[in-house]
Amino acid sequence: MAKYTKIPEATIRRLSNYLKCLGDLETKNERVASSALIANICNVNAAQVRKDFAYFGEFGIRGMGYNVKELKRNIKEILGINREWRIAVVGIGNMGSALLVYKDFLKQNYKIVAAFDVQPERVIGHISERVGRPVEILHVERLKEVVKARNIEIGIITTPPQEAQKVADWLVDANIKGILNLSPSPVRTPENVKLRNLFFTSALDNLVYYLSN
Amino acid sequence: MAKYTKIPEATIRRLSNYLKCLGDLETKNERVASSALIANICNVNAAQVRKDFAYFGEFGIRGMGYNVKELKRNIKEILGINREWRIAVVGIGNMGSALLVYKDFLKQNYKIVAAFDVQPERVIGHISERVGRPVEILHVERLKEVVKARNIEIGIITTPPQEAQKVADWLVDANIKGILNLSPSPVRTPENVKLRNLFFTSALDNLVYYLSN
Repeated sequence: MAKYTKIPEATIRRLSNYLKCLGDLETKNERVASSALIANICNVNAAQVRKDFAYFGEFGIRGMGYNVKELKRNIKEILGINREWRIAVVGIGNMGSALLVYKDFLKQNYKIVAAFDVQPERVIGHISERVGRPVEILHVERLKEVVKARNIEIGIITTPPQEAQKVADWLVDANIKGILNLSPSPVRTPENVKLRNLFFTSALDNLVYYLSN
Repeated sequence: MAKYTKIPEATIRRLSNYLKCLGDLETKNERVASSALIANICNVNAAQVRKDFAYFGEFGIRGMGYNVKELKRNIKEILGINREWRIAVVGIGNMGSALLVYKDFLKQNYKIVAAFDVQPERVIGHISERVGRPVEILHVERLKEVVKARNIEIGIITTPPQEAQKVADWLVDANIKGILNLSPSPVRTPENVKLRNLFFTSALDNLVYYLSN
């Protein structure tokens, strides 16, 4: 997809939010949306929306707006989520359990096909009680074998902070391509493994900054 | 804090990550850190680190680096998290339950002082079984009264998507100052109420974009 390579990082970040907003419009049976409407729902300004969409040649129809379904398809293609991505979750505590039943992942082609813990037998109890058993919980020593057998490309880390780096190293060793770290401790990976550290406190920090200033 | 008002949004976002990395260094008893080390841990480049810190006049000591503890204190002051922030969580399903016992919030001065659900009696069972009862679960009809009585400034939404906007409206009506929406459906608030929509799929979208390109 060389034609898209000059899209700035901030635009990429917003594309994902636009996609959410467009999904919302779609469920309300809106077929066409103006940049002003999209901007309003997404909390950005309309000029920004038009500029962002122009990066991939999507100009809408003057006086009409954008075709919601087409725009969604375009954004999915740009982001690379127009196909299924197979995911492993490592660390099935409270957060990990919540992710296993997180319906929104499936809607976006994110399929959790394996779950690992150091004590799978301990986990199975509270998960099956609460939410059914969405996926079998495996011992983490089977990580490498299962990642290969199930064609898993992405690993999500939901362990306690002190285990996060060790798990990241295991995922790298298992030839995973990308890691989303949701543990509160930042991890590091070699350059060939893409990494996102997502901290809940960062979202609050950001909110609080704008509340304080 | 007028002196800080010109800090760009992207820098503010990174400050929060620097804080995490510095916390990590502190637990390893590192007292001084170079921009190169901070950059390496935070997955940015060293010039970016120096530029970001220069916004608030923190230049470090040439050839020595930054004092970890001081830098942390400065960043906390800038972000406004050098004091306690009182939080309510609304929607105590899997994700809400996980947040109630999320230890990292407390470390950062984020204190969950109330939890609400439409069926508190249903929730109490599975929470107390699994994690003890960190905070009493109240019926959401008590939201406004409790927000006032407990001086709550921030609301976190962890309801199913179809309830998210309704809950946002209730939080606005309860005079909450800021909302972090973790439900997968974007919500809207009036301009005087600060809002962050945080979607798990957005973090994956971003990862996948860089895996695909």
